[in-house]
Amino acid sequence: MRMIDIIIKKRNNRPLNESEFDFVAQGAAKGAVPDYQLSAFLMACFLNPLTDKETAAFTKAMAYSGGRLDFAYLKKPAVDKHSTGGVGDGISLALAPLVACAGLAVPMMSGRGLGHTGGTLDKLESIKNFNVRTPVKRIYKQMEAIGVCMFGQTADLAPADKKLYALRDAAGTVESRPLITASILSKKYAEGARSLLMDVKYGGGAFMQKYADSKKLALALVRTAKLMGISCRALLTDMDTPLGRAIGNANEMLQTILILKGDKNLAPDFYELLIQTGAHMLAIGGVEKDLKAAARRLEGYIQTGAALQKLKEIIKWHGGNPDVADNPRKHLKNAPLEYIFKTPAAGFIGRLDAKLCGQAAVLLGAGRGKMEDNIDHGAGIWLEKKLGGRVAKGDIIARLYASDKTKLKEGAALFAQAFAIQKNKPAPRPLIREIIK
Amino acid sequence: MRMIDIIIKKRNNRPLNESEFDFVAQGAAKGAVPDYQLSAFLMACFLNPLTDKETAAFTKAMAYSGGRLDFAYLKKPAVDKHSTGGVGDGISLALAPLVACAGLAVPMMSGRGLGHTGGTLDKLESIKNFNVRTPVKRIYKQMEAIGVCMFGQTADLAPADKKLYALRDAAGTVESRPLITASILSKKYAEGARSLLMDVKYGGGAFMQKYADSKKLALALVRTAKLMGISCRALLTDMDTPLGRAIGNANEMLQTILILKGDKNLAPDFYELLIQTGAHMLAIGGVEKDLKAAARRLEGYIQTGAALQKLKEIIKWHGGNPDVADNPRKHLKNAPLEYIFKTPAAGFIGRLDAKLCGQAAVLLGAGRGKMEDNIDHGAGIWLEKKLGGRVAKGDIIARLYASDKTKLKEGAALFAQAFAIQKNKPAPRPLIREIIK
Repeated sequence: MRMIDIIIKKRNNRPLNESEFDFVAQGAAKGAVPDYQLSAFLMACFLNPLTDKETAAFTKAMAYSGGRLDFAYLKKPAVDKHSTGGVGDGISLALAPLVACAGLAVPMMSGRGLGHTGGTLDKLESIKNFNVRTPVKRIYKQMEAIGVCMFGQTADLAPADKKLYALRDAAGTVESRPLITASILSKKYAEGARSLLMDVKYGGGAFMQKYADSKKLALALVRTAKLMGISCRALLTDMDTPLGRAIGNANEMLQTILILKGDKNLAPDFYELLIQTGAHMLAIGGVEKDLKAAARRLEGYIQTGAALQKLKEIIKWHGGNPDVADNPRKHLKNAPLEYIFKTPAAGFIGRLDAKLCGQAAVLLGAGRGKMEDNIDHGAGIWLEKKLGGRVAKGDIIARLYASDKTKLKEGAALFAQAFAIQKNKPAPRPLIREIIK
Repeated sequence: MRMIDIIIKKRNNRPLNESEFDFVAQGAAKGAVPDYQLSAFLMACFLNPLTDKETAAFTKAMAYSGGRLDFAYLKKPAVDKHSTGGVGDGISLALAPLVACAGLAVPMMSGRGLGHTGGTLDKLESIKNFNVRTPVKRIYKQMEAIGVCMFGQTADLAPADKKLYALRDAAGTVESRPLITASILSKKYAEGARSLLMDVKYGGGAFMQKYADSKKLALALVRTAKLMGISCRALLTDMDTPLGRAIGNANEMLQTILILKGDKNLAPDFYELLIQTGAHMLAIGGVEKDLKAAARRLEGYIQTGAALQKLKEIIKWHGGNPDVADNPRKHLKNAPLEYIFKTPAAGFIGRLDAKLCGQAAVLLGAGRGKMEDNIDHGAGIWLEKKLGGRVAKGDIIARLYASDKTKLKEGAALFAQAFAIQKNKPAPRPLIREIIK
């Protein structure tokens, strides 16, 4: 088999088979195929898009390009969630312990924040000594002991995806639905998840702004996952405005703990999405088909303290102090400098822009400009008011935190553009607009 | 300007402008743009084909990527011919001196043979000491002195084309009409030719087998050349069967000299194409608009010995012994081993396959498998009979020459498949099927 023939075949829009995708993925992972051939191939795939069958074959080939995790030995469904990324979207932090309480295996491999969206690993690391670089042996041991592990991608996992993703970024082939699908699913497949809940976000703060584009991606993900034997659903959820009250790292961790402690009114949108996402995971994992029953079961784990207890076990296994879950405000502190936004007029919050909020949080120190940058776990935004909220003149809208005056000033200047007050109450937006099965 | 933006623009099928093509060509020539970006760009150009205007802009950008020759100082039209390549197609050897006699400047930059088609430089080098690596200063001096120079591509000339051609070959984007057009014309433009006669061949032995494909290429070449201010015509000529009697290097040079000495019946098809091609060059060069008058003029240069004299000057300027032109059989010898093909039956030559003849010549030693291979100038085929020719049983069809028994045997085995005898005279094929102006 020769790479040049595979390139020409795809260029001529003829379907590739499994062994051809294997050749590409192995060649990318091992460096046996030069970059200029891989990038030409990716451009051919971009302009002659892969069919669902091809996407599934390519996904599997990338998943098999390195080491893989396998949780079949646990004799329970291995379930994970993937979000396409958002602002204030710390659902995973609460979801992993919650769903593990229901007897599902949750191997949750997460990423870091980049751009205006946050990352689960960064949020976890706001807990002192929380180690996300879990060796494979330890992942297996922890999964057996507590049924859940939260870790970062190992170098060995889906190396073909890592290589091809970098080339797509550098050579202009990022925005291809089949390639995006294959990239997302290859990592989840390699991680060992065989049930997968996709949270595909749309709106100004999302990876895809247009609802129609997000829906097409959701459909492609679900179709491709099913072809690979993964039980999969996708929720299409709003990311035009931030989720929850916290945007940052320590504050999102704090919000999670307060909710798991039972404060369901702290951030109703966050709570709703948490329970609904979890309920669908129970359904695709096969432990509770009825969504309402599943939701009741999950709410029960919060009320009994089981979910908080599971979080404490997670923290302990990853090297952190479980006292964080008992006394969160003691451990998860905001950065020292505070900037308080008050309403200039009475009315309703008519706009609260997710992307600008996320970018303001980055300026405050909560995110990264480049992958190498350090983040300030205490920096961020706490939203006292949410989209549609009624305000009197002088009410506090948000509190901004930073460790540095310049950063505070820059973040505040941007946040000032992120909201608008209007006279009439805006029409409510659905949080979950559609479910793709 | 960033390469990634240019790639994405082309990928999205939006037209690129001159400065964007300049950026690509300069980046390719200077190594400032990495190969993986260039190959992705080329695939985008393949699948979203360049318009004529874009092709002209890209051609010019590649022509300007290195040094260029300029013959404006000669105050006469600089004319060249380009053939897409064939078997026995040694027209250039006779054409350059012939057309120079008419007062045209002929800067003829040629290539080497690769695959089953021959190359002008290899044929010239069958003359001992003939040097085709002519330095630029010497090209200018020679053009001023005798109005014609036959040389190989300098490293400095259209380096972007050299780089991009290699990438197209390695990453599957060769067969793109606009890219082929830009590659051919960029070298001719950089060489300084401002009138150009294209000999676009079709049939089994040609670069493009189908007439329709060759015609599309001819149309693209003429349209693009005109957009660049080059006076251009294309002849669509038959390459299903070899041209002339000689296939090889020394024997093609011999044939040329015999014809310039006045033997017009030696190879009537070769002679006809020589005179017609030359007449069109006089027309596009503006020295003789009437084709019949131009043809008469060229035939006159042969009859008076002026063309042969010009060839002697060329040989002398390039370091060879001009006695080759006076006593060609003394200098241009066939390889020592001979294999004689005789007809197994009486009838007509119903098939004489150009590609198989060319491949047989390569096996005899006349061509190269790889660019690094050495060639045997004396190896080749002399066709005693041509397509459509009447034969009696036992007549000699062809003589094969090689320096090595194994090569002779292998070449003969392949040549045996190249012809067929039939009872009825086959319908004649037109040599020049169409002229694109």
